Amino acid sequence: MKNPGIKRKAWNIPDIPEMAQAIRAGNIPYLSKAITLTESTRPEHRMYAEELIQTLMPFTGNSIRIGITGIPGVGKSTFIESLGKHLILAGHRLAVLAVDPSSPLSGGSILGDKTRMEQLSRNPNAYIRPTPAGHALGGVAARTRESVLLCEAAGFSVIFIETVGVGQSEVMVREMTDFFLLMMLPGAGDELQGIKKGIVEMADLIVIHKADGEMKTKAKRAQVDYLQALHFMPPRSDAWVPEVCLASSLSGEGIQAIWEIILRFKGHSTQNGSFQNRRHIQSGQWFHHSLELLLQNQLNQYLHTSGSAQLIQKQALAGEMNPLLAARKIFSEWLLSNQSHLS
Amino acid sequence: MKNPGIKRKAWNIPDIPEMAQAIRAGNIPYLSKAITLTESTRPEHRMYAEELIQTLMPFTGNSIRIGITGIPGVGKSTFIESLGKHLILAGHRLAVLAVDPSSPLSGGSILGDKTRMEQLSRNPNAYIRPTPAGHALGGVAARTRESVLLCEAAGFSVIFIETVGVGQSEVMVREMTDFFLLMMLPGAGDELQGIKKGIVEMADLIVIHKADGEMKTKAKRAQVDYLQALHFMPPRSDAWVPEVCLASSLSGEGIQAIWEIILRFKGHSTQNGSFQNRRHIQSGQWFHHSLELLLQNQLNQYLHTSGSAQLIQKQALAGEMNPLLAARKIFSEWLLSNQSHLS
Repeated sequence: MKNPGIKRKAWNIPDIPEMAQAIRAGNIPYLSKAITLTESTRPEHRMYAEELIQTLMPFTGNSIRIGITGIPGVGKSTFIESLGKHLILAGHRLAVLAVDPSSPLSGGSILGDKTRMEQLSRNPNAYIRPTPAGHALGGVAARTRESVLLCEAAGFSVIFIETVGVGQSEVMVREMTDFFLLMMLPGAGDELQGIKKGIVEMADLIVIHKADGEMKTKAKRAQVDYLQALHFMPPRSDAWVPEVCLASSLSGEGIQAIWEIILRFKGHSTQNGSFQNRRHIQSGQWFHHSLELLLQNQLNQYLHTSGSAQLIQKQALAGEMNPLLAARKIFSEWLLSNQSHLS
Repeated sequence: MKNPGIKRKAWNIPDIPEMAQAIRAGNIPYLSKAITLTESTRPEHRMYAEELIQTLMPFTGNSIRIGITGIPGVGKSTFIESLGKHLILAGHRLAVLAVDPSSPLSGGSILGDKTRMEQLSRNPNAYIRPTPAGHALGGVAARTRESVLLCEAAGFSVIFIETVGVGQSEVMVREMTDFFLLMMLPGAGDELQGIKKGIVEMADLIVIHKADGEMKTKAKRAQVDYLQALHFMPPRSDAWVPEVCLASSLSGEGIQAIWEIILRFKGHSTQNGSFQNRRHIQSGQWFHHSLELLLQNQLNQYLHTSGSAQLIQKQALAGEMNPLLAARKIFSEWLLSNQSHLS
C-alpha cells in the first residue's frame, strides 16, 4: 500500500483521524462503516480497522457490557427492548450486538435478523447491529469484541451482547462482558437444568422470563429451584452471589429491579477490584484468540496457494495418507515457506 | 532422540513392530498403553504414537463407529450396556470411548468416570476407555480419533463414542462417526427441542429412551412430535431418512430394533457410496484439526519460552497495549524466530 490515501478514497472511506473524530461525535453511519470494515476479510480493510481501533483505544472501556443468553423462544429481544426503553429514559445510550452461532449443518443463523426490536431500532439513542456474517464462531467473537470498543468510543454507555444457548457461544460472550445474564423460562424441566449446568455456573443473574399470567406460579417455583441450585455452587472469587429474579417484558414487572441488580453488581465489583480484574483476564483471552485467528488465516492462505500442500491434502482426503501425517508434513513445509518469505 | 531403543526401554514400552503385533492380536494391556501414549503431551510419546498409528493404518477402518449423545440423565451408559450385551452375544467385540467436555468454569468432567457400565466392563469382549484427561475439547477429539483407529486395529468391530449435549462436543463426535444417535427423554418440552435443533439435524436416529411404565404414553407422543419435526427438514444428501424409535434399557424393548436400523443404515450408505464419502469428508476434518493443534502447540511453546513474547503479553494484560496489536507483534516475531531456527 504505497498510497493508502488514494485507495481509501476509492472505497469512499475517510482517513483515520476524520473517522475517529466522527465516531467520537456519535456519528452512526460512520460507526456502522467502521464496524463493517472490522468484519471485512480484505487485508487492507482489516489494517484500517485495527489502526482505527488503536487510535480510539483511549476512549473505550466506559460502558457496562452485558451478556444475555437463553434458548430461542425465551424472549431475549423483547426483554432487551423492554429494559432498553427504560435505560434510554434514564439517559443512557445503548448498543445491541449479537454473537450468533450458525447451525452446524445448514450454516444458517440461529438468532435470525434483528428486525425484532422494533421500538429500539427506531430510537436514536439505540444502535442495533446484527451478527457479522461469513465468519466462524471464533471470528464472530473477535469481531464483536472490536464492535464493542467502537460503540464505546461512540459514547454508548450500555452494551448488550446477545447469544443463544448452544454451548460455545455463551462462553465467548461471557469472555467479553462485565455481567452475564441467563434467561430461563418458567416450567422448564430438570433436563434443561442438567444441560445448562456449565452455563448456570457462569451467570451473574438468572432471570425467569415471561413470569406473568398463568406462568407466575411456575416461575416462582423455578426461582426457588434455581436459588437452591446456586446455593450448592462454591463461592465465587469475586464474592458476588448470583441472584434469581422474575421478569415480564409484557407487564414490565421486574425490569427496573434487574437494572438495579446490575448497578449493584457494578458498584460491588468495582469496589473490590473484581470488575477491573475480569476485564484484565478478558484482555488476555482476547489476545489469545487474536493470535489464533492470525495463525489460522495465514495457514489457510498457505493451504489455498501452495501446490505441494494441495497435493498432500488431496492424498489425505483420498485415504492415501494418514491425515495426521499429512498435517505434520504441511506444517513443516509451511514453516519453511515462512523462512523463504522473510529472508 | 539418538537412541530411541534405549529410551523406550526406560519407559518400559516395546518397539513399534512388537507393539503393533500385540495390538493386532487383541492384547488389551498393550492397546491401553498405546492409547495412553497418544494422550501424552510429551513429544517422544507423541512421536511413538504417531508412528504406531501410521504402521497400523492398513488394519483400521473395519468397524462401525457409532456416536451417541444426549443430556446427562438420559441413560446413555445403561443404553450402551444394554445394546452392548446384545452385540457381544451376536459375536461382536466392542469398544466404548468418550468425548467429555469439561465444565467451562470448574474444569471438571461432565460425563464422570466410566465405572457405570458394570457388566460390560467385566466382559472380555468389551473395552471401555474414559476420556483422555488434561486436554481441551479439540485435543480430546483428536486423541479420541486416534483411539478409534487403535481399537479397530485391535479387532473391535463396533465402536461407541459417547458425549453429552452441550454444543461443540456433539459436532466433534459426529465428525468422527459413521452413525450418529441422539437420545432423548420422553416428555421433554418444546424448549428442549428448540435448543437441540442443530443436534437433531445431525442425527441419523433419534431414540426416545426410558420408554417404559408410565412414560410409555409420553414417549409415543414424543415420537410423533419428532417424526413431524424431522419431516420438515430438507432431504439429506445421503438419501437417508432419520428414524425415531422408542427404547427401554430396563425391559430391553427396542434394543434389537435399533441395531437393525444401524445395520440397515450401513447397508444403505455403503451401497450408495455415502458411507465412504462421509469417511472421506471426516479425513479432511481430521486433517484440519490436526493442523490446528500442531499450530497451537507450537505457538504455546513459543509464548512460554520467548522473553520478548512474554513482555508483550504482560503489556497487553496490563492494558498498556491493545491485545490485537500485541497478537500481531508476537505473530511477526514468531515467524522470524522460525526463520532463525530453520536457517
